[in-house]
Amino acid sequence: METKEKSTIILFSGELDKAIAAFIIANGAAAYDHEVTIFFTFWGLNALRKDEKIRLKKGWLENMFAKMMPRGANKLGLSKMNFGGMGPKMIKHVMNKHNALSLPQLIELAQEQNIKLVACTMTMDLLGLQKEELIDGIEYAGVAAYLGDAADAKVNLFI
Amino acid sequence: METKEKSTIILFSGELDKAIAAFIIANGAAAYDHEVTIFFTFWGLNALRKDEKIRLKKGWLENMFAKMMPRGANKLGLSKMNFGGMGPKMIKHVMNKHNALSLPQLIELAQEQNIKLVACTMTMDLLGLQKEELIDGIEYAGVAAYLGDAADAKVNLFI
Amino acid sequence: METKEKSTIILFSGELDKAIAAFIIANGAAAYDHEVTIFFTFWGLNALRKDEKIRLKKGWLENMFAKMMPRGANKLGLSKMNFGGMGPKMIKHVMNKHNALSLPQLIELAQEQNIKLVACTMTMDLLGLQKEELIDGIEYAGVAAYLGDAADAKVNLFI
Repeated sequence: METKEKSTIILFSGELDKAIAAFIIANGAAAYDHEVTIFFTFWGLNALRKDEKIRLKKGWLENMFAKMMPRGANKLGLSKMNFGGMGPKMIKHVMNKHNALSLPQLIELAQEQNIKLVACTMTMDLLGLQKEELIDGIEYAGVAAYLGDAADAKVNLFI
Repeated sequence: METKEKSTIILFSGELDKAIAAFIIANGAAAYDHEVTIFFTFWGLNALRKDEKIRLKKGWLENMFAKMMPRGANKLGLSKMNFGGMGPKMIKHVMNKHNALSLPQLIELAQEQNIKLVACTMTMDLLGLQKEELIDGIEYAGVAAYLGDAADAKVNLFI
Repeated sequence: METKEKSTIILFSGELDKAIAAFIIANGAAAYDHEVTIFFTFWGLNALRKDEKIRLKKGWLENMFAKMMPRGANKLGLSKMNFGGMGPKMIKHVMNKHNALSLPQLIELAQEQNIKLVACTMTMDLLGLQKEELIDGIEYAGVAAYLGDAADAKVNLFI
């Protein structure tokens, strides 16, 4: 039995452009039959949030984090030229014009290609994010699981 | 025949300090006889722009991107302490004082050392950048080419 | 004799959240018996500064860098939601509440686990940082040393 090539990406950043880059690389690798894992930590977790408001019992600080952080793939800003939200609109416009997949579509494709999407439980605790707030079909793990995957992988990126 | 070690760097960021770091690592690896590829994507492409203004037929949005993004290695800002352009001047001053190579010189050295400089064609389409606007002697490819190189490489960085 | 797995991290960024991520990954890898090296370059060096003021003879520009850059692990800002210093306080508060190690504790743990902390001498020159200003028990080297370690390592990240 042949073992598949492995690739891992840590998505630490919560910006649209970086998330798009992460998912384009991940989907490309999966298309070449790599076993791909994306670990979402810190601000990267925001890409996995559901876009509706989920009512949950939370502490004051956790509520504030929840409110201030972008809710889901459609709400992320850009790392450059954000212009108070105009930048992301411009990027989405040109991506659409060139028939490039949007971030939500890239995430969907990743799930169809069996890319493992893993939410970092330690950061979830810190930021007060709960499983109910994140999209379905993802896994939950800590740094140990990441290291296990990364030690077997050829390509390991931190984005 | 001995095969060379390979290294790849994705330069996603468009800041002077990150571009310098990328080229110092790349040139170092090439000096140790690695086969090195730098993939320029998103804002990283700006490091490859020619510094003169190139007149091309472009749409309104593409023109705006072209105008707002820094034109070439000499125009990049810093990721920290940019101070409206004072920071890059300070960094260039201390680099010059310590006889460190400037970014344009590092790029030149990279080309002399046969480091493959690859512009990401997908991002070029999105941002409306055309080959005429980028420096000579570079290659053009997409994520598939990157993955092919990265799967064979020991060191793969995302900057 | 069995050889250990190796991992390297370049810490380029000077932000609290990215430094925490770097040290959590590094300490995790060391706990799994990897030989781990963190290279501190550019703004990442600030995480290694002593927090007291060290009087040294420096040029004007070096003094200015020294003054404007955060002095040590306790003074770093966040890459997102910094809010003029409120963000780091919030993060430190929730980390403390969840009994997560603080950055200074993570650095101490790294040293106890024999993680090699290496300050990039080239950047130290550029920014005018001197050995007396950095914490004890670290090493000093350049890009060549990094490349030597990285070529043998399975996991190489740029943060």
